[in-house]
Amino acid sequence: MKHKHLLGLEDYPAEDIQTIIDTAFSFREVLERPIKKVPSLQGKTIVNLFFENSTRTRISFELAQKRLSADTVNFSASTSSLKKGEAFKDTAQNIEAMKIDAVVMRHPTPGAPLHLTQHIESIVINAGDGTHEHPTQAILDMTSLQEKFGHLKGLKIGIIGDIAHSRVALSNIYGLKTMGAKVTLCGPATLIPPFAEDLGVLVNYNVDEVIEWADAINVLRIQRERMGGGLLPSVREYRNLFGITTERLKMHKKEMVIMHPGPMNRGVEIDSAIADSDQAIILDQVLNGVASRMAILYLLLGGKQEVGKN
Amino acid sequence: MKHKHLLGLEDYPAEDIQTIIDTAFSFREVLERPIKKVPSLQGKTIVNLFFENSTRTRISFELAQKRLSADTVNFSASTSSLKKGEAFKDTAQNIEAMKIDAVVMRHPTPGAPLHLTQHIESIVINAGDGTHEHPTQAILDMTSLQEKFGHLKGLKIGIIGDIAHSRVALSNIYGLKTMGAKVTLCGPATLIPPFAEDLGVLVNYNVDEVIEWADAINVLRIQRERMGGGLLPSVREYRNLFGITTERLKMHKKEMVIMHPGPMNRGVEIDSAIADSDQAIILDQVLNGVASRMAILYLLLGGKQEVGKN
Amino acid sequence: MKHKHLLGLEDYPAEDIQTIIDTAFSFREVLERPIKKVPSLQGKTIVNLFFENSTRTRISFELAQKRLSADTVNFSASTSSLKKGEAFKDTAQNIEAMKIDAVVMRHPTPGAPLHLTQHIESIVINAGDGTHEHPTQAILDMTSLQEKFGHLKGLKIGIIGDIAHSRVALSNIYGLKTMGAKVTLCGPATLIPPFAEDLGVLVNYNVDEVIEWADAINVLRIQRERMGGGLLPSVREYRNLFGITTERLKMHKKEMVIMHPGPMNRGVEIDSAIADSDQAIILDQVLNGVASRMAILYLLLGGKQEVGKN
Repeated sequence: MKHKHLLGLEDYPAEDIQTIIDTAFSFREVLERPIKKVPSLQGKTIVNLFFENSTRTRISFELAQKRLSADTVNFSASTSSLKKGEAFKDTAQNIEAMKIDAVVMRHPTPGAPLHLTQHIESIVINAGDGTHEHPTQAILDMTSLQEKFGHLKGLKIGIIGDIAHSRVALSNIYGLKTMGAKVTLCGPATLIPPFAEDLGVLVNYNVDEVIEWADAINVLRIQRERMGGGLLPSVREYRNLFGITTERLKMHKKEMVIMHPGPMNRGVEIDSAIADSDQAIILDQVLNGVASRMAILYLLLGGKQEVGKN
Repeated sequence: MKHKHLLGLEDYPAEDIQTIIDTAFSFREVLERPIKKVPSLQGKTIVNLFFENSTRTRISFELAQKRLSADTVNFSASTSSLKKGEAFKDTAQNIEAMKIDAVVMRHPTPGAPLHLTQHIESIVINAGDGTHEHPTQAILDMTSLQEKFGHLKGLKIGIIGDIAHSRVALSNIYGLKTMGAKVTLCGPATLIPPFAEDLGVLVNYNVDEVIEWADAINVLRIQRERMGGGLLPSVREYRNLFGITTERLKMHKKEMVIMHPGPMNRGVEIDSAIADSDQAIILDQVLNGVASRMAILYLLLGGKQEVGKN
Repeated sequence: MKHKHLLGLEDYPAEDIQTIIDTAFSFREVLERPIKKVPSLQGKTIVNLFFENSTRTRISFELAQKRLSADTVNFSASTSSLKKGEAFKDTAQNIEAMKIDAVVMRHPTPGAPLHLTQHIESIVINAGDGTHEHPTQAILDMTSLQEKFGHLKGLKIGIIGDIAHSRVALSNIYGLKTMGAKVTLCGPATLIPPFAEDLGVLVNYNVDEVIEWADAINVLRIQRERMGGGLLPSVREYRNLFGITTERLKMHKKEMVIMHPGPMNRGVEIDSAIADSDQAIILDQVLNGVASRMAILYLLLGGKQEVGKN
């Protein structure tokens, strides 16, 4: 792996993304066994440093760590010395001084994981930093696409929703472009960043055209709290214009794949029947999330054991 | 085991209850060893999904899981995506998609664990659902009774307190009736459900008569928050009428066994001296709780190793 | 070990402190290995009973436990039955009834761990009880001093700050005196306990004289919440009179060692440049914290395996 850390997919090498995806497939097989555990990271210690609540990402990482036999310690901001006003740098250096091997960090501030690498020697994995990046989500999305289509190169992917505030969108854009896929962004004009086309992607405000074009669409969660703030129309209007509804998909005669990073607002950005249909690979994404995170931890922490050997 | 899940003891087969109790005794022996751990569930993953706070039940399950060498992940509602409005079904399906083997669930809504089984394939164990059932508590109570008396059939058990709101009472009623014990309910008339006698139990509002009759009494916790709501008299009056006090027991010349599911209100439903006396088997219940939960997990998750083999 | 528990260093035997320190050095070596884990306490269960939030102490203990292969269960007051009004004694006896081997306890009330030993049979380790003692912190401080100087006897240690409210100070005083070191306390007169000299230590209100005298100084955290309460001058005045500032240390021509138990208020009791300088052994203290806690758990829980054998 070229980079010691996984901070984001901007400038992350295609061959390393491919290695992670291939390794994730090996761990998928481990996860289908009765004993879903390998000793690869025995004796390694990983700290999950979560400055924002997150059920699915935290549990996904924790399961990945335990199934690699690593020891894990959870740290959440709500119980931390940060309340006592301790400097971020001190918290980080203190944790590292306990001889840990890696930190998985979620933080509301863009760049916090990068900042962390300037203070500690351990491997840092970004589990989402504000509106910046969420690289492990993009890797699990790409693993799921490769599983479905057998390749990423040339795939046409629509990303639909609040692009401007989405770390999932940004990491997907970087990763998919690197892997040779084509990306079209779609959403209300207020929520498409002005620099979008500089990223080498297309922008199309007509969701029906994007559906016609795409091999797969990635439907982002709409944050209800942005509604009414001037950035988003009402829930009803959003659903009419951009919602992946049963009625809309009936109009189209194609079988594109539907993804969602969760948690879903059923009935807002996606209809329940669509989310539960065979077109949707939403639960495969979840399983690939554990497998991809196992692959990332395994590759970055230098597991010596062959993958999948018990 | 006839049932895949353990949702409640209503209609749970007597032979399966007996198998659990017998297996619990095997695990009791494991718990007396210096190394209180067996590899039975190595590589299995169990998620503790707690939508209500609970110290003793959560720790009891967690210890049972760790001593069977399972991997455990704790999920508590306060840190979950549920706050973001995610559907219960999505939370459950997401967790299952990570390839877990069982879910231990506590939820304030009666029927929530049953509801969960309609959405996921994993084994579901009810750790208390509102005022409905708490089957593992009843099984540990029966394990403790069998330990004390050598049998359950024909035993006379008084259950004293707020029966109407007690999942502990309801599961005990179902389990004890199935196992051939006789049950008398006792408490303020406002807190005895009207359908009580349909359950095949006796009702007696006179606690002294119940004491004279019983081989063992199970003293329920009185929720102070129900006092003054019209359902319960004052603490003092409750204690006078139904409290298991030193004075009351002195009047009776018998040595019946005293149980309490905890946490106790010492000085309200039970006097401190009684709770700490040799008649009480309250701490045995706690230890049998770990052993019974080990037995349930072992039997439902298909541990292949012989019980108690290191 | 003379004592079953580790409640404080008052009257703790010198030879046992020395044994812990020597064992900590063995575990330091384990912590430098790629596999930082030994099977010494496999099958033992340790409960971390934290009635006060604490990031660093809780993580330090948890890492120590996991690296000894013990099973750990975390209990924090915020999610406990204590909220339901359960007696401390019942919480403790219940947890013990589950067959645990040791309890690590932090509590805001001085004497709570001693109180606990009267209700349970398990080994109790004090992780800080109010303004009383914090013995594992003092042991890690002494381990760090011995690492730096090769001995403790005759060392001159200044402890600077709010002595009156500091469990770190009190445990250090007891431990250092027992090991033959000399201690001088320094801080605002309102924050030096009147009985200080009865403890066999010196008091000096002039921090510059203490710096000239000391081989090492232990700089305590200043609780900002005490400022303005009449006990402490303003932050600026405290810094001028007692702060370990770059300007102050430049005036002195000596290379004494600087310690801090964390979390630091950089710019108040200690300047950032000092905290990050080669004189400071603050991060060594953190690493020695894990090693010392491994030693304490290992020695008190009777690990049979030779230290450091994988």
